[in-house]
Amino acid sequence: MIIVLKPQATEADANEILEKIASLGLKPLYMPGVERTVLGALGDERVLRQLHLDSYPMVDEIKPVLSPYKLVSRELQAHDSIVSIGGTKVGGGNFTVIAGPCSVESEQQLFSVAEMIKSHGVPLLRGGAYKPRTSPYSFQGLGEDGLKLLKAAKAQYQLPTVSEIIDPVDAELMAEYIDCYQIGARNMQNFRLLEAVGKQKIPVLLKRGMSATIEELLLAAEYIINAGNPNVILCERGIRTFETATRNTLDLNAVAYLKEKTHLPVLVDPSHGTGVKSLINPLSRAAAAVGADGIIVEAHLNPKEALSDGHQALTADDFAKLMADIKPFVNAAGKTMK
Amino acid sequence: MIIVLKPQATEADANEILEKIASLGLKPLYMPGVERTVLGALGDERVLRQLHLDSYPMVDEIKPVLSPYKLVSRELQAHDSIVSIGGTKVGGGNFTVIAGPCSVESEQQLFSVAEMIKSHGVPLLRGGAYKPRTSPYSFQGLGEDGLKLLKAAKAQYQLPTVSEIIDPVDAELMAEYIDCYQIGARNMQNFRLLEAVGKQKIPVLLKRGMSATIEELLLAAEYIINAGNPNVILCERGIRTFETATRNTLDLNAVAYLKEKTHLPVLVDPSHGTGVKSLINPLSRAAAAVGADGIIVEAHLNPKEALSDGHQALTADDFAKLMADIKPFVNAAGKTMK
Amino acid sequence: MIIVLKPQATEADANEILEKIASLGLKPLYMPGVERTVLGALGDERVLRQLHLDSYPMVDEIKPVLSPYKLVSRELQAHDSIVSIGGTKVGGGNFTVIAGPCSVESEQQLFSVAEMIKSHGVPLLRGGAYKPRTSPYSFQGLGEDGLKLLKAAKAQYQLPTVSEIIDPVDAELMAEYIDCYQIGARNMQNFRLLEAVGKQKIPVLLKRGMSATIEELLLAAEYIINAGNPNVILCERGIRTFETATRNTLDLNAVAYLKEKTHLPVLVDPSHGTGVKSLINPLSRAAAAVGADGIIVEAHLNPKEALSDGHQALTADDFAKLMADIKPFVNAAGKTMK
Amino acid sequence: MIIVLKPQATEADANEILEKIASLGLKPLYMPGVERTVLGALGDERVLRQLHLDSYPMVDEIKPVLSPYKLVSRELQAHDSIVSIGGTKVGGGNFTVIAGPCSVESEQQLFSVAEMIKSHGVPLLRGGAYKPRTSPYSFQGLGEDGLKLLKAAKAQYQLPTVSEIIDPVDAELMAEYIDCYQIGARNMQNFRLLEAVGKQKIPVLLKRGMSATIEELLLAAEYIINAGNPNVILCERGIRTFETATRNTLDLNAVAYLKEKTHLPVLVDPSHGTGVKSLINPLSRAAAAVGADGIIVEAHLNPKEALSDGHQALTADDFAKLMADIKPFVNAAGKTMK
Repeated sequence: MIIVLKPQATEADANEILEKIASLGLKPLYMPGVERTVLGALGDERVLRQLHLDSYPMVDEIKPVLSPYKLVSRELQAHDSIVSIGGTKVGGGNFTVIAGPCSVESEQQLFSVAEMIKSHGVPLLRGGAYKPRTSPYSFQGLGEDGLKLLKAAKAQYQLPTVSEIIDPVDAELMAEYIDCYQIGARNMQNFRLLEAVGKQKIPVLLKRGMSATIEELLLAAEYIINAGNPNVILCERGIRTFETATRNTLDLNAVAYLKEKTHLPVLVDPSHGTGVKSLINPLSRAAAAVGADGIIVEAHLNPKEALSDGHQALTADDFAKLMADIKPFVNAAGKTMK
Repeated sequence: MIIVLKPQATEADANEILEKIASLGLKPLYMPGVERTVLGALGDERVLRQLHLDSYPMVDEIKPVLSPYKLVSRELQAHDSIVSIGGTKVGGGNFTVIAGPCSVESEQQLFSVAEMIKSHGVPLLRGGAYKPRTSPYSFQGLGEDGLKLLKAAKAQYQLPTVSEIIDPVDAELMAEYIDCYQIGARNMQNFRLLEAVGKQKIPVLLKRGMSATIEELLLAAEYIINAGNPNVILCERGIRTFETATRNTLDLNAVAYLKEKTHLPVLVDPSHGTGVKSLINPLSRAAAAVGADGIIVEAHLNPKEALSDGHQALTADDFAKLMADIKPFVNAAGKTMK
Repeated sequence: MIIVLKPQATEADANEILEKIASLGLKPLYMPGVERTVLGALGDERVLRQLHLDSYPMVDEIKPVLSPYKLVSRELQAHDSIVSIGGTKVGGGNFTVIAGPCSVESEQQLFSVAEMIKSHGVPLLRGGAYKPRTSPYSFQGLGEDGLKLLKAAKAQYQLPTVSEIIDPVDAELMAEYIDCYQIGARNMQNFRLLEAVGKQKIPVLLKRGMSATIEELLLAAEYIINAGNPNVILCERGIRTFETATRNTLDLNAVAYLKEKTHLPVLVDPSHGTGVKSLINPLSRAAAAVGADGIIVEAHLNPKEALSDGHQALTADDFAKLMADIKPFVNAAGKTMK
Repeated sequence: MIIVLKPQATEADANEILEKIASLGLKPLYMPGVERTVLGALGDERVLRQLHLDSYPMVDEIKPVLSPYKLVSRELQAHDSIVSIGGTKVGGGNFTVIAGPCSVESEQQLFSVAEMIKSHGVPLLRGGAYKPRTSPYSFQGLGEDGLKLLKAAKAQYQLPTVSEIIDPVDAELMAEYIDCYQIGARNMQNFRLLEAVGKQKIPVLLKRGMSATIEELLLAAEYIINAGNPNVILCERGIRTFETATRNTLDLNAVAYLKEKTHLPVLVDPSHGTGVKSLINPLSRAAAAVGADGIIVEAHLNPKEALSDGHQALTADDFAKLMADIKPFVNAAGKTMK
């Protein structure tokens, strides 16, 4: 950790901090410069955070040298983690497609989509039972009835399921019905929720918050793993920027960067990442090319009747085209389509 | 609601949509242009949302005419709402200062701050018992013990209290100890939490999410009011932008805009809004000038020992200076300092 | 064009505007709603802009139906434009790699890079002679001497060249030495510069501004074409967002969106788009997959000695790997590597 | 300067860099940590930039200790600079209002505005003769005829003038007609333009770019001063963020921060900073409160007929109200209204 002092800091100010550093068993360093004095602390600087050196009036800036996360880091584990969702492996050499409706609306709706995606070899079904909606007047999901339909669809089509959790209180109940939690963008820093799924055994698909930095996403994953559940899959789903032509800005830089920094699998959500149906196809190809471990997309046999996000739902024809179009890119990436 | 069709849309496509609009009891409008056909729907367009017209393949864009919120709108209630926190009125002609430590750490720490702010006539004490922290390795708050200290401080200094809620399960318990919930930026779209505080009676200080639009903030408030609790106070606390010199970008445009659009009181949090101690003073003055109903700031008698956010905590001297400095601006704004 | 009036607008206010619309030969529409009155104008709404209806006090919002650009639009020209840089075709079924140093530094430096890229079949050489630098204390480029070296390198290696223009006054001079202007991100809305290159014949590689919307990029291209030069190539080079792990956020959504909206070729600059050397390779693959017409990358045989942007310059080995790695993705996209 | 090496860096890698540092006359520091090795360089690190240490493959990150600007810094000059525009002092204890139309359109239009603002004691007239417009189809300004009108208005009303420059070639000509250049947001990093006005004597009002960091704004000012012209006034005019309710997000944090870091005067442009007429008044009050040295606003006696930006132009009544409303806040700030 590097500590830059203010121009007016005295040697006594420096000494006070150097002693604190030494008192924690780290090696202090004194670097008086022409214009500024800089201090250093060598050792595990995560210990140093308890000193809250940025609260010292003579401290101008703290520059950490080490990343604040550890369990998710490739420096801790160099090889790729492979996470199993109900027997389907995500990560490693696999390119996994997860598909289904935004919301579970009815047996007919869910089963028809499940059958359609199954026919393309898709191994995992997504569908929301609890829906976080910006407006209180929008459809909020079927709740436990939706979970029951997901379990029935799984039984019928042998498709393990992914569904969003929005309240810690639902964690145990949901684990009886589904195979993987999804934490949505708006809840990425709902720390109680992270801890709740961290105490369960089924995996967690953790979406990046709309304005979360990559580091914050990794720290959110660290919360889950630290609570006891190592089965975390990250998901880039677009960030919020000034651009309004697309609903969000899909950040594929983040995917490549994450693949360097963490051993966890990284998926891409091109449906929310673009918010524009015609862009889902090219961005799915790009996701495969950039090194993602799969995609999660929204599909609906009759988008006009969808209760949420119909504008970005792929029809059966759209979906068939998507699956055909991404194949050569998955091959070029040296991965196996699951 | 205005519906712009794609260039290739036919009259039959238009008619299908016009019939849907009419079927909901709204007046449909057909406007065939030279390059594009535009449709309209006159009436309460909130009803129209159930049609999900953006799911129609020939629809290029939907342009709503009305705002999606209603209960919070000045069009519904022209006069300012005044919200009472344990007897202290927020809104109307009052300029309210809420102060206290980021986290409740100990009786000594909390009481000393309470005494200090009380001596300046500050009417409300803030302090976190449950802390949402980016890293799982940071101090997470004292929990119920912290709430007990808040209640004791209130009894000792006649200071009603504000404290952050991070889990719906805590709503009832907290209402026994404190006078006002705070919903933090990371939970602004934690809809279960909004509903939980909406079912309680004590007021809610709702902070804007780091990347939430003003419209989303108003819809979050709408959730709380719609669930039964009209006592909502909004708080601008800085948004996330590309600028890194300050921790966040305090959006005072939003404060002035909110005062036009909603009858709810609007506070400003210059501590988080800047993240730089020396900027709290000038931005507090600006908050008074722009029309805010008050500020909420972090104070600590010994920031070097603070367990969180010490870098932006005001000392007793800083705080005395702040109170003196804002007074002429509160007067210029024609408000009464509380 | 749709005009939403304020709630308090009267019928007389509406009539004043409707008459203005009719006076320009457009068809006015009157749509009185329950809460708001909405007006419409059917016809070429570009004409309407001269009315500046947003200046009317009773106008709340203007919602244009048509895009403000025309010459660059696929609605005007459905087929892809192909732009020739010194005989090398960009666009259509081609995937074009443009490579070279950030700055031209010396004959030895430039020629060695040119020879290296030529050996990989790269058809176009880039290199900056005039450098826009954030700090006045940084290397500002060799100026005309740099242009001379570019011309000499072209003669030696049969590589047409691309170089940045930063002042309208240089347009004619540069056209004697190079084959394609580059307009950098900081100058995307330097309208005098756009007009200056619009009056020349050699093509223009127009980079998106750091915070320019896609619509603004298209309007900047419209400036050049409107001034007389139809040979414009667009380039996505990363936008500025809150994320700091990468220097910019490469917006591949924009590439797919642009390919839908405009007939102009679209390149990607993964060097500036990431600012991180190890991310150039995966993002180049993604660029090919998303439908870009090529990439422009920085290469230097000895990055440690580079006078600018050495941190993101590819060495000979890096470059060889990049060329090998993108090939299968270019093939998967059905394009021919140039 | 602090240099963080990659985990795999060897002692030899470190030594290569340490020798380079020493070769420039700076003191090198070697800090081998448990997980990472960190190097330091003590002395004027601006010299170090010529080493381009970020190009070294084993360098992970460079953390500068000193700011890259010098001439604009309060560390160089502690007292406020006062800049004179045609005899009117900007900065120090003055609060200066600059007002006038967005574009100069006609003698009648300009003179009527000049007369109106003069009657309120406003000392400086603004008006654009060369207009940078997003669309090539918009009004581009009257050019030299506009400058002549500005000179005539100055003679008639004793109002020194400010007008935007968009091309270096116009610098000399403009200096014959006007008293202060304005560099607009889109040209903040048009470095040739900065150098051109840096070679003239009349002052420069430099607006912050839409996505420019505060540091980049200061470096742009450094360009002008370094070229020979110390008479620079900075202007915050709103940055581009995700929020769309207002045209830009006025960053008053930046104003307070700039007042700490630089001795140059700092103005605020609430017209562009909000883009919403009704917000100009409260944000002007906030500008005075936060410590700005003045405001620059757009006024037009007949906004309905304005050729540009009429939606944000203040009428005579609006302007009278603005001047009355800001006065108590200017007084509270201890400044004298000019």
